[in-house]
Amino acid sequence: MNNNKLWGGAFEKSPTEKLLNFTSGRDVKSIDPCDQKLIPYDIATNKAHIYMLWKQKIINKSEYQAIDKELDNIFELYMNNKFKLNPNLEDVHTNIEDHLTQKLGIEIAGKVHTGRSRNDQVLSDMYLYLLANIDKYISDIKSLINTLNKKAKLYKDYVMPGFTHHQYATITTFGEVLLAYSTAFNRDLISLANIKAKFNFCPLGSVTSYGTTFAIDPSIVAKKLNFASKFQNSIDTISNRGEFEAEFTFVICNFLNHASSLSQTLILFSMPQFGFVNLADQHTTGSSIMPQKKNPDPLELIKAKAAFAHGTLVGLLSITKSSFIGYNRDVQQTKSMIMDLIEESEDIPTILTEIMSEIQVNKEKLFIEANKNFVTTTGLMELIVQNKNISMRQAKKLIESAVKISLQSNKNDKIDYISMNQAIANSSLDINISTQELDLWQDPNYQIKLIIKD
Amino acid sequence: MNNNKLWGGAFEKSPTEKLLNFTSGRDVKSIDPCDQKLIPYDIATNKAHIYMLWKQKIINKSEYQAIDKELDNIFELYMNNKFKLNPNLEDVHTNIEDHLTQKLGIEIAGKVHTGRSRNDQVLSDMYLYLLANIDKYISDIKSLINTLNKKAKLYKDYVMPGFTHHQYATITTFGEVLLAYSTAFNRDLISLANIKAKFNFCPLGSVTSYGTTFAIDPSIVAKKLNFASKFQNSIDTISNRGEFEAEFTFVICNFLNHASSLSQTLILFSMPQFGFVNLADQHTTGSSIMPQKKNPDPLELIKAKAAFAHGTLVGLLSITKSSFIGYNRDVQQTKSMIMDLIEESEDIPTILTEIMSEIQVNKEKLFIEANKNFVTTTGLMELIVQNKNISMRQAKKLIESAVKISLQSNKNDKIDYISMNQAIANSSLDINISTQELDLWQDPNYQIKLIIKD
Amino acid sequence: MNNNKLWGGAFEKSPTEKLLNFTSGRDVKSIDPCDQKLIPYDIATNKAHIYMLWKQKIINKSEYQAIDKELDNIFELYMNNKFKLNPNLEDVHTNIEDHLTQKLGIEIAGKVHTGRSRNDQVLSDMYLYLLANIDKYISDIKSLINTLNKKAKLYKDYVMPGFTHHQYATITTFGEVLLAYSTAFNRDLISLANIKAKFNFCPLGSVTSYGTTFAIDPSIVAKKLNFASKFQNSIDTISNRGEFEAEFTFVICNFLNHASSLSQTLILFSMPQFGFVNLADQHTTGSSIMPQKKNPDPLELIKAKAAFAHGTLVGLLSITKSSFIGYNRDVQQTKSMIMDLIEESEDIPTILTEIMSEIQVNKEKLFIEANKNFVTTTGLMELIVQNKNISMRQAKKLIESAVKISLQSNKNDKIDYISMNQAIANSSLDINISTQELDLWQDPNYQIKLIIKD
Amino acid sequence: MNNNKLWGGAFEKSPTEKLLNFTSGRDVKSIDPCDQKLIPYDIATNKAHIYMLWKQKIINKSEYQAIDKELDNIFELYMNNKFKLNPNLEDVHTNIEDHLTQKLGIEIAGKVHTGRSRNDQVLSDMYLYLLANIDKYISDIKSLINTLNKKAKLYKDYVMPGFTHHQYATITTFGEVLLAYSTAFNRDLISLANIKAKFNFCPLGSVTSYGTTFAIDPSIVAKKLNFASKFQNSIDTISNRGEFEAEFTFVICNFLNHASSLSQTLILFSMPQFGFVNLADQHTTGSSIMPQKKNPDPLELIKAKAAFAHGTLVGLLSITKSSFIGYNRDVQQTKSMIMDLIEESEDIPTILTEIMSEIQVNKEKLFIEANKNFVTTTGLMELIVQNKNISMRQAKKLIESAVKISLQSNKNDKIDYISMNQAIANSSLDINISTQELDLWQDPNYQIKLIIKD
Repeated sequence: MNNNKLWGGAFEKSPTEKLLNFTSGRDVKSIDPCDQKLIPYDIATNKAHIYMLWKQKIINKSEYQAIDKELDNIFELYMNNKFKLNPNLEDVHTNIEDHLTQKLGIEIAGKVHTGRSRNDQVLSDMYLYLLANIDKYISDIKSLINTLNKKAKLYKDYVMPGFTHHQYATITTFGEVLLAYSTAFNRDLISLANIKAKFNFCPLGSVTSYGTTFAIDPSIVAKKLNFASKFQNSIDTISNRGEFEAEFTFVICNFLNHASSLSQTLILFSMPQFGFVNLADQHTTGSSIMPQKKNPDPLELIKAKAAFAHGTLVGLLSITKSSFIGYNRDVQQTKSMIMDLIEESEDIPTILTEIMSEIQVNKEKLFIEANKNFVTTTGLMELIVQNKNISMRQAKKLIESAVKISLQSNKNDKIDYISMNQAIANSSLDINISTQELDLWQDPNYQIKLIIKD
Repeated sequence: MNNNKLWGGAFEKSPTEKLLNFTSGRDVKSIDPCDQKLIPYDIATNKAHIYMLWKQKIINKSEYQAIDKELDNIFELYMNNKFKLNPNLEDVHTNIEDHLTQKLGIEIAGKVHTGRSRNDQVLSDMYLYLLANIDKYISDIKSLINTLNKKAKLYKDYVMPGFTHHQYATITTFGEVLLAYSTAFNRDLISLANIKAKFNFCPLGSVTSYGTTFAIDPSIVAKKLNFASKFQNSIDTISNRGEFEAEFTFVICNFLNHASSLSQTLILFSMPQFGFVNLADQHTTGSSIMPQKKNPDPLELIKAKAAFAHGTLVGLLSITKSSFIGYNRDVQQTKSMIMDLIEESEDIPTILTEIMSEIQVNKEKLFIEANKNFVTTTGLMELIVQNKNISMRQAKKLIESAVKISLQSNKNDKIDYISMNQAIANSSLDINISTQELDLWQDPNYQIKLIIKD
Repeated sequence: MNNNKLWGGAFEKSPTEKLLNFTSGRDVKSIDPCDQKLIPYDIATNKAHIYMLWKQKIINKSEYQAIDKELDNIFELYMNNKFKLNPNLEDVHTNIEDHLTQKLGIEIAGKVHTGRSRNDQVLSDMYLYLLANIDKYISDIKSLINTLNKKAKLYKDYVMPGFTHHQYATITTFGEVLLAYSTAFNRDLISLANIKAKFNFCPLGSVTSYGTTFAIDPSIVAKKLNFASKFQNSIDTISNRGEFEAEFTFVICNFLNHASSLSQTLILFSMPQFGFVNLADQHTTGSSIMPQKKNPDPLELIKAKAAFAHGTLVGLLSITKSSFIGYNRDVQQTKSMIMDLIEESEDIPTILTEIMSEIQVNKEKLFIEANKNFVTTTGLMELIVQNKNISMRQAKKLIESAVKISLQSNKNDKIDYISMNQAIANSSLDINISTQELDLWQDPNYQIKLIIKD
Repeated sequence: MNNNKLWGGAFEKSPTEKLLNFTSGRDVKSIDPCDQKLIPYDIATNKAHIYMLWKQKIINKSEYQAIDKELDNIFELYMNNKFKLNPNLEDVHTNIEDHLTQKLGIEIAGKVHTGRSRNDQVLSDMYLYLLANIDKYISDIKSLINTLNKKAKLYKDYVMPGFTHHQYATITTFGEVLLAYSTAFNRDLISLANIKAKFNFCPLGSVTSYGTTFAIDPSIVAKKLNFASKFQNSIDTISNRGEFEAEFTFVICNFLNHASSLSQTLILFSMPQFGFVNLADQHTTGSSIMPQKKNPDPLELIKAKAAFAHGTLVGLLSITKSSFIGYNRDVQQTKSMIMDLIEESEDIPTILTEIMSEIQVNKEKLFIEANKNFVTTTGLMELIVQNKNISMRQAKKLIESAVKISLQSNKNDKIDYISMNQAIANSSLDINISTQELDLWQDPNYQIKLIIKD
């Protein structure tokens, strides 16, 4: 942090670095080569592959050990930030094989690519990368759900108007609102678990698309890499590269749709017009010229990321549509697309957790609003039905009439006793409603106890 | 069928009615109102709802029985094609309630909508509709898979060139190609099962979005309608209308991507240039002017339906993105979108099953091609590695050199003995390869036995 | 209209039929076969085609006259609603040719399809259909713009807070807000004019994709049908069917994005929290259970239609992506897609015109809000710069400090004199600001005169 | 280039660096920060802005000159690769203002941001960036069109079968095929010119969204920056950020759809099954294990880029859908999206130009195929109509019958004399066709002269 941002003079607290990074995005940030992210996974798949080659007697023990040791060396270089990809060597696979060849010669290193192709190799790297990122998402969304649930308990009795069509509908609580989102995010966890199970097969051994004459055993590789099983059909595995990416993207789309709805709801709830919640200073940003601004930028960007994710999904689905059998280079594009999406979206669960942790909810304001704009009128109608032995449709007509009369006498929040009686008189119903009943049945606190049943 | 089609004079067999319907599509076909499809489901949810109202003592037994009997009457009318939606009555819910009111009066019929809203009602109808369609898809895709697997067994030893990048790669069999698609379709079954489990909760009781003061028990309704459970959070359930539709659409997208790839592969394989397969006459259509044409229209349309499905998915995802809490009317659009997609795509599994059942595969042509264009060369390289104790990289360089030499002497299909020897001589390798070895190792039948391991 | 809608009891005015139709959508409405819409255009292209055949001496005069007369007869039948498409006859082209054959025999009617194909015929029908719909859009959007501009003049001095990030930013007027939308819609007119010019070439004569040996003259046909010119390259014309549809869809997407933004702005402005505008009763709908509801359903649906349009665009673009040269049946799907989009969206300009005509704007409330939440503070800062000879950055720091001090003393709307002075004292600046200056410079009416320059 | 690629041993020529870069893509390439691309444009907008401030007497001459000179210094640093963005300073605007402040102090540099905001500033930078890229596209597509047209002239008389539905249709020439694509690309030029005209207004002066109290003159800025005019309505300009990006993206989508279709056509035409064209060695790539492979990777990737562009379009359209009035941060996402798309696609026109320049077309093979599979049969039918005084429908039925008979006697390419006569005998037609006529009318060279009319 420094003082040179063009805004922020009126703020008490500065945004956290993660948030600043999220909001400034790629303006001043460069993006690493995609294969940078694959180095550890490519080392892992190489190690598993040569282990299998040895077990299957395709290479001998000393060859295995020599290559395996050198792969460990590469990993150590990598961990110490010393293994850099040479852009002249096309990709991570070539970089690693080239390193091995430099160290071990073509007679030995030239065996590492036996019985495989870059097609199944990169796919295996990607599967490992995707599964790891699924786990990260699962863990971060769980934290978000925990925070929402904890806060929901805290705001359990914060009675407020519920909205439909952006208009006041009936009574609810702020706790229920938060539980709505934690329930939605829970479905995203189910989906993540589903795709984790669905794509838990190791592609190595599919080779170009059609297998190999070498006596390889893909099950050994799969087990070594902790996959649930080996691939089932080599052509399917390679031809449908991009399907795992699309599935993951779809789950992210759903997650971001939920997140974008939470964002939009918080953006409105925190407008001065609402005053339902306050976002912490550090979760908003200022303006380069308007001194008073406290803008919900991170929430706005979450909405934009949802749009970005939809676009990624379209691109991914389109790439493999109508593709001819076997590997086609078109699918290479899927690599940067899914990596970009993960990079753009991976911090969102954590950011939302942080925002939700610091949010302030104005209980008093919520309650005031819960008494406005006829938000308790549907409850009143229901209570008349329950107590006055008329059908719901009869009660609705009665109440609609009462609302109309109330509005004419500028009562815009609840039905008053005079309007109620007038409406009854205008109807053919033989009932009466006391002031006490009218007051009680339009009391948000009374209604909410009947609504929240557990 | 009649003689007035503008094409078809050269055909032996006419297309089936289902296929004709699929190919002419909406040109001369009208589309029913959406709510037409919901009538039986709306009757079912009404029946379950009033049953619960009775069990919860919100209505009495005679009211329940009167309404229930009248709902049965409506169902009978519907089954006899006599219950028609009145367009002045907005939707199926109003039509049914209006019918009940006509028959039973507002005092009784006016109770049917007690403790619910059209928001949770239509959602429940839609869930039932979607779950029924998922079951239909599952059943039809299973038939398709069965057909593919049966045919795969039949074509188990139809050796052929495998393609990558649209170019000959290595040896495979036609059986393996079919298994690739049945494996992919199997993943679609997994996804269908997953969403069937994920959205197996009954929305009734969510009401507008925020529940009700009535002492309803949504679990009774859920059980009566054979859902696994009631909804979890009423706001989430209603706010996220469209999510089930989007998930189903995504699975259809994946299925159609697989189907479009199978279609594209068959389109190419049946071109005269390939001659790998013949589509049955009845699975192709003719031209209005070109007398000789036999066009794979159904397969082309399957590709277009995949594109259509992608579009539907985008629309559905976009509708709920960034939506404010609670029900918003925007989601109404999701109804016609998913229904249109189902209508456009539901016959595809059956059509593909039919096409695959009648397909003719040219074993001889496949084998001829399996001996061309160096498709056995990678296998040769692998067999040299396995037999001559050199590394895969060394072998590859050797073979690349041999290919180059072969091409120079216009040998475009396999490496000949002279080129092989020349390449060995040019290398520093100390090996030799006999004509017998060269012939055997480039024999597709020999290679395929090593490749297909199970 | 009848009394049986489940809602509406509290309304003064009922929705217009067009609006009811728009909001209930396809629930109780069926959709005609696509080719129903093409009948008049197919008659027109038939007439132009046979005229050219005669002029080119491919048919003789009496043949021309006989066919032409019978086409006129079909048109009269159509206008009297008596020409019905027979679904067994595949499409409109076959229906019309069949009718001609019934009337004139194969010797004469069998000549109508000379030198053309259904590929160029349907494309020409579609071009005419699309161009007609572009004209309708242009006309309806012009009306919308006129209404917005007229209203903008009316609300020229309705001073109000401008928003950025959903937060108060600086002063504007309601007139400027409306002009923002009319400016955006004007760009849509430019786009409509552009595609009208771009696709103003007649496809007839492209035949299957590759022309014909007949001595046709496509320019005659083009002229007869009022196209600007004939097609340029027959293969391009046929292969790229769907491109015109996609272009039109893209313009609709842009238009609906603008319309959806106007809708969202009106939805918020009409919330009780804002109270900036009132939508007329007839432009809102009620609830099936909540008696007090006045929901902005048409505006919500406009947003959904934007999403639907995005989906249509994706589908259309995807259909022709990577397509092999020449006509492919995939493109047939484009017909129902564009027709559905037009059907779903064509009333939106008119509906928005109607809504905007009846909208009520609360000038007083707008002005009250223009004095709140520091919305005049940026103007104040600018006026300090203009009058006190300090740089904008210096002024901004000063004002940020003053805002902070004001907030601490619970002044949330404008900077008060004490806070201002305190901020000056805390700074190193050598200026002073009088109460009169402070009041004047924070007066929305004063600021707006400086902002609105023309 | 080096020897360490894992493939390529059998190639005569290596891929050019541009192609290698295109095919390896982002695997080993990092992406610069977005604002890196904006530096020269931000300097330009700064220079124009302060010039206007001086002309409008908002700053004085010496202030103007001091800032202007320092901006020139920054430009020189930038050109010498010495102006690096400091990631702690959020964006290019802050970096440049900070540099000015370091050099000139807050009293002078603090005036540079007078009467503007980052909202209008970044938009102006982006407009300049987009317009420059439109020009680059225009120029590169023009080169592509020139190459196609030049080649079309060369292949003017390369007679070949035209395809519809992937099946032989009627006769065409390779020249016509190339002209189809140049015609399509010409439409893309029209679209580029259209959006260049449509978005040729300068956003500076819109400020946050609502203008300013400063006496700025946006026309001066617009003129200085060579825009056609200033913006029309400040709110519209800022609120619809992303629209220009979406329009540009849509044109790229269309261009890439055309390019993807050309790619797919070349991929098939260059398959051994076709043998119509040869791609130059340097425009294909090899395999990491299959020694014989010559894969059309660049063409495959072009197809994938089309899919990527579709996705970008969806994302961009979705971001501004249903957005509330005024600037919203969501739009920031549009910056990296359009820049990524340009980066991914900008070389495609040049790459296609290069590929088309080096392509080899097999005239002999094309002509052989033009005599196969009844591709001349439709022409024959047309010539019978023209010479034997029967209607097209009568002729079609006759020919369909003749095709059927031919097929029964294993004549699969043309109708033979015996079959023709048999068909005539079976019909009720009173015509006869001589062998000379039959031969001539099925001669591709004879037909093509009638088809290609100009």
